Amino acid sequence: MSTTQTQTETKKSKQKLAIIDTDIHERVLYKDLLPYLDNPWRHYIENCGWIQEKHLPYVQPTVAGVDRADAVPPNGGLPGTDLKFMQEQLLDDIGHEFGILTGALDPSPSSMHGWPEMATALASAYNDWQIENWLEKDERLYGSIQIAAQEVESAVKEIERVGNHPKMVQVLLPIDDIMWGDPQYHPIFEAAERHNLMIGMHHNEPPSYYGKWPRYFIEWHTLIPTAHIMMITNLVFNGVFEKYPNLKCMMIEGGFTHVPHIMRKMDQQYKDLRHEVPWLKRKPSQVIKENFCFTTQPVEELSKKEFMQLLDQLGSEDIISFSTDYPHWDYDSPYRALPNLDKELSKKIFSENARNFYPKLPKKEGGEQ
Amino acid sequence: MSTTQTQTETKKSKQKLAIIDTDIHERVLYKDLLPYLDNPWRHYIENCGWIQEKHLPYVQPTVAGVDRADAVPPNGGLPGTDLKFMQEQLLDDIGHEFGILTGALDPSPSSMHGWPEMATALASAYNDWQIENWLEKDERLYGSIQIAAQEVESAVKEIERVGNHPKMVQVLLPIDDIMWGDPQYHPIFEAAERHNLMIGMHHNEPPSYYGKWPRYFIEWHTLIPTAHIMMITNLVFNGVFEKYPNLKCMMIEGGFTHVPHIMRKMDQQYKDLRHEVPWLKRKPSQVIKENFCFTTQPVEELSKKEFMQLLDQLGSEDIISFSTDYPHWDYDSPYRALPNLDKELSKKIFSENARNFYPKLPKKEGGEQ
Repeated sequence: MSTTQTQTETKKSKQKLAIIDTDIHERVLYKDLLPYLDNPWRHYIENCGWIQEKHLPYVQPTVAGVDRADAVPPNGGLPGTDLKFMQEQLLDDIGHEFGILTGALDPSPSSMHGWPEMATALASAYNDWQIENWLEKDERLYGSIQIAAQEVESAVKEIERVGNHPKMVQVLLPIDDIMWGDPQYHPIFEAAERHNLMIGMHHNEPPSYYGKWPRYFIEWHTLIPTAHIMMITNLVFNGVFEKYPNLKCMMIEGGFTHVPHIMRKMDQQYKDLRHEVPWLKRKPSQVIKENFCFTTQPVEELSKKEFMQLLDQLGSEDIISFSTDYPHWDYDSPYRALPNLDKELSKKIFSENARNFYPKLPKKEGGEQ
Repeated sequence: MSTTQTQTETKKSKQKLAIIDTDIHERVLYKDLLPYLDNPWRHYIENCGWIQEKHLPYVQPTVAGVDRADAVPPNGGLPGTDLKFMQEQLLDDIGHEFGILTGALDPSPSSMHGWPEMATALASAYNDWQIENWLEKDERLYGSIQIAAQEVESAVKEIERVGNHPKMVQVLLPIDDIMWGDPQYHPIFEAAERHNLMIGMHHNEPPSYYGKWPRYFIEWHTLIPTAHIMMITNLVFNGVFEKYPNLKCMMIEGGFTHVPHIMRKMDQQYKDLRHEVPWLKRKPSQVIKENFCFTTQPVEELSKKEFMQLLDQLGSEDIISFSTDYPHWDYDSPYRALPNLDKELSKKIFSENARNFYPKLPKKEGGEQ
């Protein structure tokens, strides 16, 4: 949705929607992590000039940079840093049943360059900070486990450490130059499956021209779904979901209009070249239908006809799940982002598909939304 | 199409189809270029051990590597090296009206690493070899100009040198880590437009995991359309077709089922972020409809309903053009690759869209195909 549509909805005449929002970005300031870091890591930040890696070369060309202009908390801090303000502006305002926190540690610890122990320490500190300041302060919020995959053994230990927390629902992995389908990373999937956790995949960096930065943000942002296409290809053909059949993967913040193409393409390739990947026993489109889900945002403006045509091509009503991407600039409002859908379908997309996806989310107690 | 479908068609009961085939790969052996190379370049190959760069780490997992098993010429040489055999097996057999040669200099001279003068010399030799041995020996065959873009000025000179040849219809550019939309390459587009040449874009290397090779060919091959998506994004948002409005771009060997997604995605991004690219005056989907065409191969197996649904999403019947990709392993037969389409639409896809695309192709003299 465009920036002109991101203003807070008019309060009057607004119906509360008990949605499950699958992409909410809480944000940390590195100073906030200090209480959760042991030395020497804390010392490196406090006294040795360590700073976060720069993520994007662009200041995203909207009024408030990467965020909604109206998402700045009253204290003037960065959007996503203030729970109370997020509650008022998002959760209470819309009426969220649940929200899945997807973090903002740009870049993800797994994507940091060099010094793997520092990345691991930051991931752990982030998880503790998230639990204490978000998950245990609002019963609607569920969380994503950050890991640093530079050292797989350490990543697995972190999953062991926090994976049993009742409100941690997935392990969050960045999409960039890490080929997660490679067997070297499979212990991470094994640990996730063992803890009843799903996988959340969120792009860190699109495959913009082979690691070269595109000249413009509009190019970078257009190519986010291509990063998702690459990751689906890698995970499916390397047999991750044959090896860990209970694992599912939420593809976050890439939309879903690219999925019909990749289903079709992978099925054709599978038909022609499956002898190369004998461990893959199901058609790729079947794997996608059974082991993947896609958050809707940033959804293109679709008519009902166009939307239903895409669902027809997907061959499933169960693999897309609504998300706002709050507080980002291209936030999708649940009141306006989708066309007017039939009630049952709407219910699936706004809550039931997410509820079915995350086994640790409470089951529905009954009643209509 | 699968390898089991690539055998020569049964001769009896076969109707000739006067198609325009927009992707035929003739192949050169470097020794064949020697007569077209001056010294020192010839000397470097003959006496100094220069060898071609390796293109793929995989031997493509089909019986005949990257080619149709039955495309080996009688002399046992590599598929695509023997004009007479190609005439018999492809052009005469099907009844081609015209075929566009798209070469096989893997990697493309523009994609070679280091030593730009050598790449430039090879591109020139290739063009001369192509003209003498293919274009001037079969009136049905039209050609693509190879250039080495490492030095843009030299590339422009090569376009000047051979661009007026009546049978050269396009400048062939590889899709890999070269961001062709960057203004540094615009003199190439300017020279092409000035010579009434179109642009042919053919992947050299998909954006497989940011320059890292995927483990398997099936991943690499699945991601070819994502490389095309990246290039369309780069060309359109950098305003190439606003600056050179008469230029059109044939996207070769990527199929077209990815195009509805990228049209939709780019239009949405344009709506939200167009202030970043003020030179772009048309909606991206409009630019794609007016300045692009897509060769069909490797087309997925589509029912008529699915095919027509995709055309509906494209919003045009004029931007896909049939190709066989002879002699590659996933060759598409014009008898079987597409569903049974209505006559007028079939005519567009099998010949008229290509004829309208390439201004140097002879206009139709009348008569039905």
